[in-house]
Amino acid sequence: MHAARLHEYTDDMANGLSIDEVDEPQVSNSDDVVVEVEGAGWCQTDNHIIEGMWTDYVEQTLPMTLGHENAGTVVAVGEEVTLVSEGDQVICHPVQTCGTCRPCRQGETMYCENQSFNGLTTDGGFADELLTNERSVIPLPDGVDPTTIAPHADAGITAYHAVKKAEDGLNPGDTAVVIGVGGLGHIGLQCLDAMSAADIVAVDLKQSARDLASDLGAHYTLDPDSEDVASEVEDITDGVGAAQVLDFVGADETTRLAPDICAAGGDHHIIGYGGHIHEPAQSLVNGEFAYQGNIVGRYTELQELVALVERDAVELHTTQYGLDEINTVAEKLEHREIDGRAVITP
Amino acid sequence: MHAARLHEYTDDMANGLSIDEVDEPQVSNSDDVVVEVEGAGWCQTDNHIIEGMWTDYVEQTLPMTLGHENAGTVVAVGEEVTLVSEGDQVICHPVQTCGTCRPCRQGETMYCENQSFNGLTTDGGFADELLTNERSVIPLPDGVDPTTIAPHADAGITAYHAVKKAEDGLNPGDTAVVIGVGGLGHIGLQCLDAMSAADIVAVDLKQSARDLASDLGAHYTLDPDSEDVASEVEDITDGVGAAQVLDFVGADETTRLAPDICAAGGDHHIIGYGGHIHEPAQSLVNGEFAYQGNIVGRYTELQELVALVERDAVELHTTQYGLDEINTVAEKLEHREIDGRAVITP
Amino acid sequence: MHAARLHEYTDDMANGLSIDEVDEPQVSNSDDVVVEVEGAGWCQTDNHIIEGMWTDYVEQTLPMTLGHENAGTVVAVGEEVTLVSEGDQVICHPVQTCGTCRPCRQGETMYCENQSFNGLTTDGGFADELLTNERSVIPLPDGVDPTTIAPHADAGITAYHAVKKAEDGLNPGDTAVVIGVGGLGHIGLQCLDAMSAADIVAVDLKQSARDLASDLGAHYTLDPDSEDVASEVEDITDGVGAAQVLDFVGADETTRLAPDICAAGGDHHIIGYGGHIHEPAQSLVNGEFAYQGNIVGRYTELQELVALVERDAVELHTTQYGLDEINTVAEKLEHREIDGRAVITP
Amino acid sequence: MHAARLHEYTDDMANGLSIDEVDEPQVSNSDDVVVEVEGAGWCQTDNHIIEGMWTDYVEQTLPMTLGHENAGTVVAVGEEVTLVSEGDQVICHPVQTCGTCRPCRQGETMYCENQSFNGLTTDGGFADELLTNERSVIPLPDGVDPTTIAPHADAGITAYHAVKKAEDGLNPGDTAVVIGVGGLGHIGLQCLDAMSAADIVAVDLKQSARDLASDLGAHYTLDPDSEDVASEVEDITDGVGAAQVLDFVGADETTRLAPDICAAGGDHHIIGYGGHIHEPAQSLVNGEFAYQGNIVGRYTELQELVALVERDAVELHTTQYGLDEINTVAEKLEHREIDGRAVITP
Repeated sequence: MHAARLHEYTDDMANGLSIDEVDEPQVSNSDDVVVEVEGAGWCQTDNHIIEGMWTDYVEQTLPMTLGHENAGTVVAVGEEVTLVSEGDQVICHPVQTCGTCRPCRQGETMYCENQSFNGLTTDGGFADELLTNERSVIPLPDGVDPTTIAPHADAGITAYHAVKKAEDGLNPGDTAVVIGVGGLGHIGLQCLDAMSAADIVAVDLKQSARDLASDLGAHYTLDPDSEDVASEVEDITDGVGAAQVLDFVGADETTRLAPDICAAGGDHHIIGYGGHIHEPAQSLVNGEFAYQGNIVGRYTELQELVALVERDAVELHTTQYGLDEINTVAEKLEHREIDGRAVITP
Repeated sequence: MHAARLHEYTDDMANGLSIDEVDEPQVSNSDDVVVEVEGAGWCQTDNHIIEGMWTDYVEQTLPMTLGHENAGTVVAVGEEVTLVSEGDQVICHPVQTCGTCRPCRQGETMYCENQSFNGLTTDGGFADELLTNERSVIPLPDGVDPTTIAPHADAGITAYHAVKKAEDGLNPGDTAVVIGVGGLGHIGLQCLDAMSAADIVAVDLKQSARDLASDLGAHYTLDPDSEDVASEVEDITDGVGAAQVLDFVGADETTRLAPDICAAGGDHHIIGYGGHIHEPAQSLVNGEFAYQGNIVGRYTELQELVALVERDAVELHTTQYGLDEINTVAEKLEHREIDGRAVITP
Repeated sequence: MHAARLHEYTDDMANGLSIDEVDEPQVSNSDDVVVEVEGAGWCQTDNHIIEGMWTDYVEQTLPMTLGHENAGTVVAVGEEVTLVSEGDQVICHPVQTCGTCRPCRQGETMYCENQSFNGLTTDGGFADELLTNERSVIPLPDGVDPTTIAPHADAGITAYHAVKKAEDGLNPGDTAVVIGVGGLGHIGLQCLDAMSAADIVAVDLKQSARDLASDLGAHYTLDPDSEDVASEVEDITDGVGAAQVLDFVGADETTRLAPDICAAGGDHHIIGYGGHIHEPAQSLVNGEFAYQGNIVGRYTELQELVALVERDAVELHTTQYGLDEINTVAEKLEHREIDGRAVITP
Repeated sequence: MHAARLHEYTDDMANGLSIDEVDEPQVSNSDDVVVEVEGAGWCQTDNHIIEGMWTDYVEQTLPMTLGHENAGTVVAVGEEVTLVSEGDQVICHPVQTCGTCRPCRQGETMYCENQSFNGLTTDGGFADELLTNERSVIPLPDGVDPTTIAPHADAGITAYHAVKKAEDGLNPGDTAVVIGVGGLGHIGLQCLDAMSAADIVAVDLKQSARDLASDLGAHYTLDPDSEDVASEVEDITDGVGAAQVLDFVGADETTRLAPDICAAGGDHHIIGYGGHIHEPAQSLVNGEFAYQGNIVGRYTELQELVALVERDAVELHTTQYGLDEINTVAEKLEHREIDGRAVITP
């Protein structure tokens, strides 16, 4: 079958992946599941992986097929699989978990001690077929199209995961700030709107993103180029600050906002990455806010997100590309030319 | 009466405060309480205030009497005060709160929108008498000596406050790391031991502090000069990391430990300050840990800490000094020559 | 001034209260607030008070002016009141709290150890003027009419309080059951819809109430006369049960549903009262559900509910009656002839 | 092999089980684990099962080998088992879970939709060998004896599970009431002491149980025969009530204490069973307390309890009996003649 594989780290997105001919995956364990991929979302993290930005954090063996946002149809299952069978449409959580380590037992599947992560530490879904396991697939409700839902497998649950934590700290009358209304941010904003009665302030450099934010439920939008985000948030919140900040950008300029826009006791959730935090400890002591790291959401959170999709609470704008266009997609994203989410259809 | 007052910011601790003759405070509001100060703890924050390190965070009008860890005997009360009366022994929460703003209503008294902070934004207790209010005093149980308990009014509740948050994330078998076993750290360690069944790892440069930690319940001690804290914590926790880290130092070297010693989903609590956080956002995303800021504890937390003291769960080593020795105390602390906590007895 | 007062307990609603001429309340404490009552909601609890049903639970001295759901205009304030001044429009939380007991400090204002409860333990608002205090009034946002919002002071926050607890246990895809879509239930249902993404099942004997429920956001409605609630909930939830049940009726027939409709780990919230719980302990052990009691909401919850009203998330249907019609209102409610909420306009 | 099996429900404990010769269990699934039973605790629930008291709640096929508190040595494993291997000593969580249903994914293993419960719905451990699976066994730390730890597999984690919930609501200075200091209660009391700084009041009819409670950390003991529990608790708590009540008896007389001894906002945890709750809904509304049902603890809670045992925080008094004495044990327990816990050693 065809698979888009990374052979060596590079900053040259135009030649990041090569389309190789590889063997189709085979069932060998009792809980294996093989999925024919119908949609595989392209993510900013794919660019970061190509650049080698994850080598300090995880073990990678090249060549590796990228692609961690996958959905499709089951084509083979191990002999003890009961959750799905051939022909079922599924979305694939990117992490294949063991089910027997303590974090798995606690429901913290993202902390699985024996995990494989599609397209990050094991072969992913930019290919005709993907090998995964029973603990990683979620059957889709009738009428939900695998191709269009695929990006929820990572972009969606990452945004949802952060919102679910944030939502605990949001009462009616409180304010949430969403920084960055891109692939993840526009999902997070809709989840916030569906799950809380907070006032939402969306911050983005692009007018089109701010317009989208308004359409999707933001009560205020701010342009950091022309407006002072800190003083605007202070005005909007009568000097209290935002109870929760969702930073989908994670740049130096955005993490630095925390002491000025977070309410006492609030959280600045770090979801996007690329930049740094540089902040005096005294600032956290004085303001009693937290920089809260956020990883991909859990398996059960993907179930919950699918439930939100099923009730039309979260819409996702996608554009489809063939597997042969994959490096073009990488380049476009690098130049911020992708609106919504690009989905590869191998 | 005599009061130790700051007239101008300086790095010269030997001449930081001057002993002035000032008027005794008078009751003017219905809820005013005047306390004859019997003990007033000297805190690292007093040094920081003298250095002008808080001018970016709060409004200060000099001259000002310092001293935010006070206990003593009530000598006058406003006409509607019912909680205490003349002759009662009390410990004074450093923050005088309004009781009617939303944070006060929520029990978040440290976030009071109309607060005065003894010795930080209004006159404190390095003086014969202190003016405070009914919402800031806690009657002492019989047999508790105001002089020796005074430091709990800030050092104690700050440590307790952080431990109370940390304790929520600690199950039996989990590990907590305490960085810095000084004035706050040795209280925090005892609170941890009383309120959880976690394994405690104490980290301190001084042998005497590590010995104290062992006496007070630490299961492991580490010397960061001769041991690699990150790899030791990894060994102790079988690679999982510490569920909670309490950083009573807050230096660049200690905040930097977080990604290496925090378990996934864990918190690195910033209690001490002086240094900075410098960390890539990706590190928080990958490890899903938080830098959690911590301010002084709430009024109700001081009640809870007094309950711990009453049941002998927390002991506090103090040395007493006269008001005229106050600059000597400041200098000694600067040179790390104070063991336990210095208490001024005006 | 005129006041509708209870002189003796009776089951005869037609003659429950008498309109007396009494002195207007005067400011005597520094935090007193006198409010000219513009709207005072009539509550099922008023009937219960007249019947003497609260004598086992609280101390009452008759005669007493009833009325615990009040809103109006401030006409006098004590000398230290800063939150409101003459002419401000306010809604009155029914409980006057001390602000200095431990529950008040914790934000648990309903547990105040020195409280007075309007119309239950002290004179209420079925009168031209009401004496309350600064800790019990909330300024209304511009454009909110005191008369129409008055019932939120008890009916509203009681429903909101229960929903806020329930909401913690509701993920997208989970199911909440609302039993009784009357005065409280129809508010609770709207709060649920605004604050969660759960599927809502509304249960009511009356077709008009079920229709209202559908209009206000219920996804399913059930008629307990013609449908088997337990088996319907089982079908709707694929055998899992409802994560949260809000029982606004509190009759024997409704509390008995818990083991059959509550999911494992779920809560059956008791908000309405009148009936009993009769259930084997084994049933709670096997199903691990809770019967969760619910009192009136806190002051801060009334602030949050006002925020929901301001953003049009909760609407309230009211009918107005003069003070002289008050016993008629009591009778009508007894015979279930009040739709929405009756508001007295003294 | 020999197995003590129930053939028909009976109230005659002297002849409840018969010792049958049955086939040894065989590995058939990839995750199967066969354990040679070294200790199997006898539980009050075994008596209840023999009486047929669980037939309304679960499906049972007789004959069935009882025994749900098992520990021993692994003698065979399925081909994909990695957690344990032959010769490992393990304690067996009584519930065999699937690992793929939503509750398992959430860490709520007791709510597994595909579970088997040893000795309740499938064959248990009153036999030479027990068939279980990888998701149900926990390797024992060195030096922990399977025979003596066995009762923690149910009695222990049930007590621990309730304490863990209760502990969330216990601050220093708060009071917890433990009703019944028997098999579960004496474990629960020790867990409370290890995990909180609450004052503990132990209530038991037997002097020996009250003495044991004092030895294990209770601050007060009450004899309900000669003392009025409600007024004693009121005195001990200065009228506030107990923040948490752990009812290990679950009789009519004990559930009825809730409104009189629970603090506002508190919980009365139902752990023991046999009696009923009979209470007006108004009582729960007025006191805002909950009757909180409690099932057996989760797999991860058994891990945490083993950690408590390893650090000597929980001791368990057991007496050993051969498999042939099993009906004698049942009779003795019926007549309250078992002190501590009886452990069968097949």
